[in-house]
Amino acid sequence: MVELYDDERIDYLVADESLQIIQSPTAFSFSLDAVLLGHFASIPIKSGKILDLCSGNGAIPLLLSRRTKAQITGVEIQERIISMADRSIALNELSEQINMIHGDLKEMQPLLGHSNFDVVTCNPPYFKTPAKTEHNRNDYLTIARHEVFCTLDDVVKACKLHVRPGGKVAMVHRPGRLIDIVTTFREYNLEPKRMQLVYPKRGKEANMLLIEGIRDGKADLKILPPLFIYDEDGSYTQDAKEIIYE
Amino acid sequence: MVELYDDERIDYLVADESLQIIQSPTAFSFSLDAVLLGHFASIPIKSGKILDLCSGNGAIPLLLSRRTKAQITGVEIQERIISMADRSIALNELSEQINMIHGDLKEMQPLLGHSNFDVVTCNPPYFKTPAKTEHNRNDYLTIARHEVFCTLDDVVKACKLHVRPGGKVAMVHRPGRLIDIVTTFREYNLEPKRMQLVYPKRGKEANMLLIEGIRDGKADLKILPPLFIYDEDGSYTQDAKEIIYE
Repeated sequence: MVELYDDERIDYLVADESLQIIQSPTAFSFSLDAVLLGHFASIPIKSGKILDLCSGNGAIPLLLSRRTKAQITGVEIQERIISMADRSIALNELSEQINMIHGDLKEMQPLLGHSNFDVVTCNPPYFKTPAKTEHNRNDYLTIARHEVFCTLDDVVKACKLHVRPGGKVAMVHRPGRLIDIVTTFREYNLEPKRMQLVYPKRGKEANMLLIEGIRDGKADLKILPPLFIYDEDGSYTQDAKEIIYE
Repeated sequence: MVELYDDERIDYLVADESLQIIQSPTAFSFSLDAVLLGHFASIPIKSGKILDLCSGNGAIPLLLSRRTKAQITGVEIQERIISMADRSIALNELSEQINMIHGDLKEMQPLLGHSNFDVVTCNPPYFKTPAKTEHNRNDYLTIARHEVFCTLDDVVKACKLHVRPGGKVAMVHRPGRLIDIVTTFREYNLEPKRMQLVYPKRGKEANMLLIEGIRDGKADLKILPPLFIYDEDGSYTQDAKEIIYE
């Protein structure tokens, strides 16, 4: 049994129907971005600690739970949305593995200490300036998508604070911000080591960016094969299917 | 008539045989990297001034001459190699459009002033540390490939010095150095705006990187569709053919 608000529904998070997630078109719905990050991040398998910042309705912790026995902590600033995550975690009987914290990622040190996580993942707000004429600063979706409560610098700083030396930070973002991202990563001694670009289809510009840095790592970036999402006929490519249906 | 040293030969620079270039396996041979940069760079067509640093045997100036009426200046530090470029330019009857300068890119200000070029192109040495045990510092190929006479910082600084505000700097390099490149570009106010990754074939990591920055540009990077060089059967892809045979 799970309680749902009027605007909420239960979706399958992956195609094999093994994970369910509470979604809301007005408050928060996970996107392909989260699915790709959940697949891209290098994580410990048998034990360890993972932190997911800007966790939203918990899509990334839920997805990662299929790949690892590590303890997963999610941080989300919006109370309405974290309640969706909490109920999804209960629905999937994952309360022993996943713990959600309601709060501001800039203020987690008293609770989480520092350098305590093997991996930090984050699907942060993508857009630099809230377009005040179009959006309401209190709107759930605006907060999730725009840097209302945290900037890229805040996010990377928090990643650095919480990941252990030699640990990994994985992020999904937009290509337009790549230069901001890598300069900020390096500023906080998170050396980018793996990157993958995601293209909607062949012949189109990249529209998504997956990047992983290592705290105190040595400079040497690997750029993985490009990921195309759709074939010419509009169906998922084999590569995309393998991620979405894994 | 052209004079050739014993180790030199004349190759066609592009498949339609309209350009010839003097090559030497022991001194310098142009590579696919130069061909891709010559195609990737955004250049003025009808007039203007283009500077090519680390110009080698002049492959990039020769290639660009097919696309533009702009005046092209090449700078190369190795006398033996610039002599190849000079003879190739004469061979192709391009002496009115292309001018090669023998010298150190770090010392070009007295001769070239500053902010005088619309576009600067560069195919610099890729490798950070000369492997002293394997290579001779005086070896032509070592100097072309390793940062013996100029570091990435020297190169980007020279690009910034010579390009006009709003002008473009295009470079080919290795993905492993991407973070060094973009942080150095930004340090010198050359904002990366266009990037393309080159993959030997599908499913492989990128092995080449084309990047273009604008002096004093606004942050917003576009990542062009990926370029694959070889098909599964080892022949050139259609995209590669269109560049090589253009």
